[in-house]
Amino acid sequence: MHCTIDTAPFTVTGERPVRLSDAPHKVDSFYTDKDDYKALLEEFQEEINDLQRMMYAHDRHSVLLVFQAMDAAGKDSTIRHIMSGVNVHGVTVHPFKRPSSEELDHDFLWRTTKALPQRGRIGIFNRSYYEEVLVVRVHPDILTQYQKVPPELIDLDAVWAERYESIRDLERHLARNGTMVLKFFLNLSRDEQRNRFISRIDEPEKNWKFSEDDVKERGFWDDYQRAYEDAINATAAPHAPWFVIPADDKRNMRLIVSQIVLERLGRLNLHYPNVSDERRQALQHCREMLLDD
Amino acid sequence: MHCTIDTAPFTVTGERPVRLSDAPHKVDSFYTDKDDYKALLEEFQEEINDLQRMMYAHDRHSVLLVFQAMDAAGKDSTIRHIMSGVNVHGVTVHPFKRPSSEELDHDFLWRTTKALPQRGRIGIFNRSYYEEVLVVRVHPDILTQYQKVPPELIDLDAVWAERYESIRDLERHLARNGTMVLKFFLNLSRDEQRNRFISRIDEPEKNWKFSEDDVKERGFWDDYQRAYEDAINATAAPHAPWFVIPADDKRNMRLIVSQIVLERLGRLNLHYPNVSDERRQALQHCREMLLDD
Repeated sequence: MHCTIDTAPFTVTGERPVRLSDAPHKVDSFYTDKDDYKALLEEFQEEINDLQRMMYAHDRHSVLLVFQAMDAAGKDSTIRHIMSGVNVHGVTVHPFKRPSSEELDHDFLWRTTKALPQRGRIGIFNRSYYEEVLVVRVHPDILTQYQKVPPELIDLDAVWAERYESIRDLERHLARNGTMVLKFFLNLSRDEQRNRFISRIDEPEKNWKFSEDDVKERGFWDDYQRAYEDAINATAAPHAPWFVIPADDKRNMRLIVSQIVLERLGRLNLHYPNVSDERRQALQHCREMLLDD
Repeated sequence: MHCTIDTAPFTVTGERPVRLSDAPHKVDSFYTDKDDYKALLEEFQEEINDLQRMMYAHDRHSVLLVFQAMDAAGKDSTIRHIMSGVNVHGVTVHPFKRPSSEELDHDFLWRTTKALPQRGRIGIFNRSYYEEVLVVRVHPDILTQYQKVPPELIDLDAVWAERYESIRDLERHLARNGTMVLKFFLNLSRDEQRNRFISRIDEPEKNWKFSEDDVKERGFWDDYQRAYEDAINATAAPHAPWFVIPADDKRNMRLIVSQIVLERLGRLNLHYPNVSDERRQALQHCREMLLDD
């Protein structure tokens, strides 16, 4: 078990409010060089894989990892690096993009609820229902023009608090029924976002990742920061914590997220299914049949 | 590019019928020792990952890998080993177990069709619609007692040929629309199955993988072999080939399957999205805006 990374500074459980303006984008490195980083990450992957394997066999708990961040913070690559090495049977990633017309024909929790992980699995939401209090809050015309809530039910002064409540209710329900929800905000600085955008323009193989809209959204940086801060503070709870992860150094970020996932998996009461005496006898009977075969 | 494994002996495209009684369960090893195997597999993983990455960016083609086999042939571990190292965003595994009552309320292709991969992704079916001409054929009472086809439409002399036809039609449709279908039969010997069952009984951590039903199904070995042979011959085509993989040596099996996946991905006309002059100008404009930011 790794004990090198203290995850407390990144953990938000609602006891005291987080202020994003004070949250670091960078911390002292947890690795010495690239090789050290690789070795650490691989160790994490193996330990996470071992626990996931047991969770799969145990078939009682499930885990939902929610990743939210500004563009270019490294959601995709963090998910990729942490989960590569974990059995593909046990993990499903759901990226949530602009909702389809079918999805808009339902309430705002419908499309993600359909995709919740089965028992024994880790589900990863790359963006999530939190977009409903982030991008939708920054651009409330999405709510009034695209989403089909009856207009008499929308009070723009109350709707965000109502949505936080719906989200809190959902996450409490999930926790009570065996789905552990862990929420990661990858906290990228405005300057580092600019550097990454420029490299997506400068490297032809990365062009497809870049959209002109990304620059437009960057113009709403402060609005987004406020929306994130409010959403985190309104929905952080011991049973559904947020983790605010310094994101300007991707390797450090991956190690911190790995440590958190590993720690939290370790807190579940996982074990391989028990074998009753009766079943043990049945197995021995099968064994004898097979030996005679 | 690996050129060490000739995949032709394992490939069935319908030109001449395969006979499972002649198909080997073992071939000369493609690796010299465990380290060599690991190095080879890792190289495969990286190359498959590179192509998958391009397929994801290109967002036109998709790939469906179907895995079928007798119990304990190593479907799960083969899928796990080949796909670990491939970006989790680009791969989804669907294990198909006993159908749910909702699934039984639909035609036999419904539940798998819902799970077909999106463009840009690799979808893996761990078991598939082929079970409908395998386990259902070996136990036709599943068809008459559990599946809800109107009885007047079921002619037990014709139903398997009709199902093969439905499957051929589906796979031709998929091929025409950009989904490459590759079907793997992991060809385990009866003796090796016995050894693996016994080790599942003897090793407590593997007990949960073993079901007394597995021994019962083993009693129908010859019926299954016939059902597999017929299904493979009825549905193998150049655009939807079967691969009959010797499965008694798991490592060899994984290397052969990797080679096949890599080869076939290589035949797709994949490239990163083209950047038009207009788009290039728009990108440069964004770049300048960012530099001034």
